[in-house]
Amino acid sequence: MLRSRRGAVDVGTITAVWPEADTLKILDQRQLPGAVEYLTCRSAAEVVAAIADLAVRGAPAIGVAGLYGLWVEAVRVSARPDARDRVLDAAGRLRHARPTAVNLAAAIDFGLEKLGTATGPEAVSRLRKAADTLAAEERTRTHRQAQWGASLVSKTASLLTHCNTGSLAAVGMGTALGMIRALYAAGRLSQVWVDETRPLLQGARLTAWELAQDGIPARLVTDSMAGSLMAQGLVDAVVVGADRIAANGDTANKIGTYSLAVLAHYHQVPFYVVAPVTTIDPKTPDGHRIPIEERHPDEVRRVAGQLVAPAQFPVYNPAFDVTPAHLISAIVTDAGILRPPYAGAIAALFSED
Amino acid sequence: MLRSRRGAVDVGTITAVWPEADTLKILDQRQLPGAVEYLTCRSAAEVVAAIADLAVRGAPAIGVAGLYGLWVEAVRVSARPDARDRVLDAAGRLRHARPTAVNLAAAIDFGLEKLGTATGPEAVSRLRKAADTLAAEERTRTHRQAQWGASLVSKTASLLTHCNTGSLAAVGMGTALGMIRALYAAGRLSQVWVDETRPLLQGARLTAWELAQDGIPARLVTDSMAGSLMAQGLVDAVVVGADRIAANGDTANKIGTYSLAVLAHYHQVPFYVVAPVTTIDPKTPDGHRIPIEERHPDEVRRVAGQLVAPAQFPVYNPAFDVTPAHLISAIVTDAGILRPPYAGAIAALFSED
Repeated sequence: MLRSRRGAVDVGTITAVWPEADTLKILDQRQLPGAVEYLTCRSAAEVVAAIADLAVRGAPAIGVAGLYGLWVEAVRVSARPDARDRVLDAAGRLRHARPTAVNLAAAIDFGLEKLGTATGPEAVSRLRKAADTLAAEERTRTHRQAQWGASLVSKTASLLTHCNTGSLAAVGMGTALGMIRALYAAGRLSQVWVDETRPLLQGARLTAWELAQDGIPARLVTDSMAGSLMAQGLVDAVVVGADRIAANGDTANKIGTYSLAVLAHYHQVPFYVVAPVTTIDPKTPDGHRIPIEERHPDEVRRVAGQLVAPAQFPVYNPAFDVTPAHLISAIVTDAGILRPPYAGAIAALFSED
Repeated sequence: MLRSRRGAVDVGTITAVWPEADTLKILDQRQLPGAVEYLTCRSAAEVVAAIADLAVRGAPAIGVAGLYGLWVEAVRVSARPDARDRVLDAAGRLRHARPTAVNLAAAIDFGLEKLGTATGPEAVSRLRKAADTLAAEERTRTHRQAQWGASLVSKTASLLTHCNTGSLAAVGMGTALGMIRALYAAGRLSQVWVDETRPLLQGARLTAWELAQDGIPARLVTDSMAGSLMAQGLVDAVVVGADRIAANGDTANKIGTYSLAVLAHYHQVPFYVVAPVTTIDPKTPDGHRIPIEERHPDEVRRVAGQLVAPAQFPVYNPAFDVTPAHLISAIVTDAGILRPPYAGAIAALFSED
């Protein structure tokens, strides 16, 4: 079922989530790169668990997974008299499966809007259609923003990226990794520096795996090597995704993004955020208002199940950090490239809607 | 055999290397924190392997281990007619067991100088005495520099440190960790941020273990969290050790140190290097001339033996980076605190000798 098409680097080669019969299939990213396995979710509770435990992750992907989760719940309870209450209750739980990315809550809200007052088979049908629409739109968005992103790089370049922002995270080509794929297709990519992205190693496990599937030249480094690479002139730009972009352009993304932005600033290396408009939250005025999820200490104390620190040693484990707008050279969206100051550009984007 | 004395934080509680009968005992740091095991080395070849494979590491510790390694070789071959040639040959191999730290080569040179033209039991005795002298001197140095270092921090502070620079790395109290121990003993330590120090996790495995032994308040973070901690005002100073300090103050240390120095500079957080005078190499004019060891890709692709990236994925794995002198607020040595510009201070230090 892994839809791998070597060479087709401009359209994305991997599908993270998709509906099959009355279930939601999820490529279990916790098992990568060692094994390619799938979860079959038949309830919202299973989808909430898959999102919370990172079987599926990445802001756009968890939005799509969440909305399909609402649909499978509607299927599951459709024969019950309290079906509508149960769907609304599931919507609340799905909405809060993870707090930082705005896409999840926005996707559920979109589904509830399309659901309206429908009940029975009509409710099921409307939720499925909403989820299909969102997935198709996200796919189109990644394609558009990849092209915009590639337009920022005029000569053959080495890019450094963080975490996983590819087809596993975003449906379609991916966000930052979509831009990298488009650059590669255009013949302007020298190589990708993939940082491993501790604690959960999304770079080493997922991004490296996606790049290997596509045959894109890349090298893996630890997060701590980024500064040294920049000092040696080996990085032409840093490209990252986003979990939530505030109205002023402040951007929450995977922990470590902020350090990269400061390092890029110091070395005068462009720092680009690539994210669909759905990741921008105009209701969040600035980065201070973005809730930052703190995760379990064992994510740091253990690697691949193995204890690598004293068992009860205290840990601080925020999943995200906030990069202030002034450190971001450009925000690449499906609606075009935003440049600082971002507040006006973002306000204009949402007033057009 | 672990000489742990809880509470005695001002003298160091752990011994990384020591002579026992005609052997060199090495606390095998590759097994920490899961197991406390010792190697018993009876030849220079075994000591070379222990240094190259990081059973013992840390610039001052590998210097002491290397010189004891020369002594165990002298013991081993003392009855042979070609004993002297074999000792000199072993000196060459020990000298190059690792390239970056200057202490190793300097320790061997010190031993050869003390050896002079001696042969037979006299040669063995002189090498043993030289190694004991070096170990005692290094121990005294860590104590002195810890006191100097603590004098830099006048109010209760939270310090961030990188890699392991404690009793496992440096004989005695340690370098940067010695300063932290002295601050704790003086009641001016709020807590230590321990970064895990990928790829080999010396922070998580070794520094966390040492701090837990001494009951010093600390929290473990990934390397990528340092910027976020500084942005939140949670770091009052960064303290690190050194593998080699050039004549102009440029400092080679564990990979990731340079990124921390840039982050500290950006956030106006003091950045201190703590290292004995033996780590300064006045013959190396600047950081560009310091050889940087590149290690095996599997150190990045695997954690605790487990593959965490595609098996053959290309890797860049430098063990060290160079922090330019202008990013260093002070260099704390056993001979006192050096302030920028360092070239003059370092020249003065060596002209006094």
